[in-house]
Amino acid sequence: MSLKDLIEKKAKATKEASRILSNSSLHDRNKALMYMAEGIKKNSVFILKANKNDVLNAKRSGLSKAMTDRLTLNNKRIEEMAASIKAVVKLPDPCGVIDKMWKRPNGLVIGKMRVPIGVIGIIYESRPNVTSDCASLCLKSGNAVILRGGKESINSNLAIHKVLQDALSKTGLPLDSINMIESTDRKAVSYLLQLDKYIDLIIPRGGEGLIRAVAEESRIPVIKHYKGVCHVYVDKEADINKAIKICLNAKAQRPGVCNAMETMLVHKDIVDKFMPKAIKALQQAGVEIRGCARTKKFSDKIKQATEDDWYEEFLDLILSVKVVNSVDEAIAHIAKYGSAHSDAIITENYDTALKFLKQVDSTCVYLNASTRFTDGFQFGFGAEIGISTDRIHARGPMALRELTIYKYIIFGNGQTRK
Amino acid sequence: MSLKDLIEKKAKATKEASRILSNSSLHDRNKALMYMAEGIKKNSVFILKANKNDVLNAKRSGLSKAMTDRLTLNNKRIEEMAASIKAVVKLPDPCGVIDKMWKRPNGLVIGKMRVPIGVIGIIYESRPNVTSDCASLCLKSGNAVILRGGKESINSNLAIHKVLQDALSKTGLPLDSINMIESTDRKAVSYLLQLDKYIDLIIPRGGEGLIRAVAEESRIPVIKHYKGVCHVYVDKEADINKAIKICLNAKAQRPGVCNAMETMLVHKDIVDKFMPKAIKALQQAGVEIRGCARTKKFSDKIKQATEDDWYEEFLDLILSVKVVNSVDEAIAHIAKYGSAHSDAIITENYDTALKFLKQVDSTCVYLNASTRFTDGFQFGFGAEIGISTDRIHARGPMALRELTIYKYIIFGNGQTRK
Repeated sequence: MSLKDLIEKKAKATKEASRILSNSSLHDRNKALMYMAEGIKKNSVFILKANKNDVLNAKRSGLSKAMTDRLTLNNKRIEEMAASIKAVVKLPDPCGVIDKMWKRPNGLVIGKMRVPIGVIGIIYESRPNVTSDCASLCLKSGNAVILRGGKESINSNLAIHKVLQDALSKTGLPLDSINMIESTDRKAVSYLLQLDKYIDLIIPRGGEGLIRAVAEESRIPVIKHYKGVCHVYVDKEADINKAIKICLNAKAQRPGVCNAMETMLVHKDIVDKFMPKAIKALQQAGVEIRGCARTKKFSDKIKQATEDDWYEEFLDLILSVKVVNSVDEAIAHIAKYGSAHSDAIITENYDTALKFLKQVDSTCVYLNASTRFTDGFQFGFGAEIGISTDRIHARGPMALRELTIYKYIIFGNGQTRK
Repeated sequence: MSLKDLIEKKAKATKEASRILSNSSLHDRNKALMYMAEGIKKNSVFILKANKNDVLNAKRSGLSKAMTDRLTLNNKRIEEMAASIKAVVKLPDPCGVIDKMWKRPNGLVIGKMRVPIGVIGIIYESRPNVTSDCASLCLKSGNAVILRGGKESINSNLAIHKVLQDALSKTGLPLDSINMIESTDRKAVSYLLQLDKYIDLIIPRGGEGLIRAVAEESRIPVIKHYKGVCHVYVDKEADINKAIKICLNAKAQRPGVCNAMETMLVHKDIVDKFMPKAIKALQQAGVEIRGCARTKKFSDKIKQATEDDWYEEFLDLILSVKVVNSVDEAIAHIAKYGSAHSDAIITENYDTALKFLKQVDSTCVYLNASTRFTDGFQFGFGAEIGISTDRIHARGPMALRELTIYKYIIFGNGQTRK
């Protein structure tokens, strides 16, 4: 059988499994999740051995230190994978929830009920923990899943997948509920992305390059964000202590993530009071600052920001800083250079706050808080399968609810249309 | 400028207009809608003249009678177009609605606020009223729109579009809020469908051929349904009078629409009581019946249904009928042959009803009512821009709410992430 046919066969089997899964009980899905968590722990030697192969290959092929680190499993990470699955067990069932119900004048009662989407395709880089994280969230929400991880982690992924399917086999749920593309051939992804007949949604997890490649090629809807060029705007009526604390947190607490601040905008009227303290604090935290002409005055160590810097997601201890004349200029800057991910205003003025909250068209707009909160756990969802900056289906942190859609159930007693 | 560049320029302008529109007041949008409704009525002579050209061309080129009828405007239809826009004015603003708001342990208050999607592309057949219907729904929901109607209606569409833009010019809203592709070149659609940079969602309106062509080619998400192969399952515990009334309504009240019944499934235990009466009533209404072997026994005039008939959307006074042994067989038949549009069960048994409502994975699942109610107006939405059988963003009848998405607004007082 050709690779293309193999992928299609697997996708078709996953679709069939999704039909059974969508009618399974929460009890059965939770039981499978518990077996999965236990299986991961019990088989840690098996998983770690497979992972060791991947890590050796990675070192031989000169994979970067950061990527090798993400690839590497150890007992602590195995424990975390199992704990994540157990945490998913405790979350409420997102399916069967009636969002709304109403009665029409003719007596029809219409209910909007959450149901699983169907088959989710996850395409991710070489982070083995994504395998069990995504599989558990899809299973919990009644979706079947097709996983395709990075080729560097193939042995780890196959081992984890085997453990997950062994867990499924102890329940009545179909093995095809959690499928994996075993081929590391790049073409396998291309074939997969054409199968809109069997796969309902693709969620890519990884860097901008991966996500763009997937979005470019896919015939299946893709929910994604390319990057997070997040802004904090310090208004003229900001509380300076709050502002410094928030900017420092947004930039330096974990600079390598998508919800970290990349650009700080400062109102001209607060510059003299705010900037010296803020720059000192940021520089002490090791942040390199690239500023506009008005920012540069505050430190010799500030480089001139280029036009490209305003678009840049540094993912590092680098920050671009601009002085603006008004909240409108801040909003316009965010609209032009931002990525519609997470943007914050620091102000004590009610009108200015409302204007910013309304007019900034980003997925998450913050008032007097750090952008770092854009995260499924921080939002209280108990999980996260990704973050979307798209404009349909779901925006912001996505968890179980975002893995569902609705159907209408309509209760009549003989109604016909006039 | 090449056609491709022209289309791109227009799409870019529409995106820019959408940013202004998304921050416009309901008052301004409603005022524009009122001017639009008045403009349509005041310029009826102008519109009807343009339409006459289209109709003459259509007759010359041998367009079918049904399509020419849909193309043709008259004073009554002009009045209806204006009335539809006025009805949209009365609907509540779908934007700014806070679906949900919650407080986190750290004091952050998170709100989920509805916002416009952005730019909607509507690709439709030669029905001039779609121009004003879709433009008004997009404007009301704060979305900019790019319209591309069938080439047979180009003169009518251009005339209506001129009237709509004249109405916009009386307000402060940007003219590019309602744009139209003026070229009838098929390539214009191809170019448009690549512009995911500027267009957020495509809604095709028309027959299966148009929709498939659009979905095939689009890089932009498309929300759609291909067809409506709707079923009514008459359970062994059905109330026979209800069942006959509903089946007759679902098939014969308006057979040419997507929510009409195409297949009737009847439980074997009720066949003898139900079938003679039902077949008589259907045949009296002019319905041609294509049945399974067990159905054929009830009338000499029943043809043998072929395998293809079960998949068929007849859109006509033709019905396929099958006797099934159980509700499970009915559910399996619907899963295999249906189009996930609208399916009904007629039963007085609580368990059977619940099973059908849960397990039938269609957009609208009815209990003891006609499938003909799948419609934005019948659901109480006050409008309809399309019906979706897709599995993300929106399913079933789509109106104003389905033209919005959400953003999160987060209220803090200095929170930073630990």
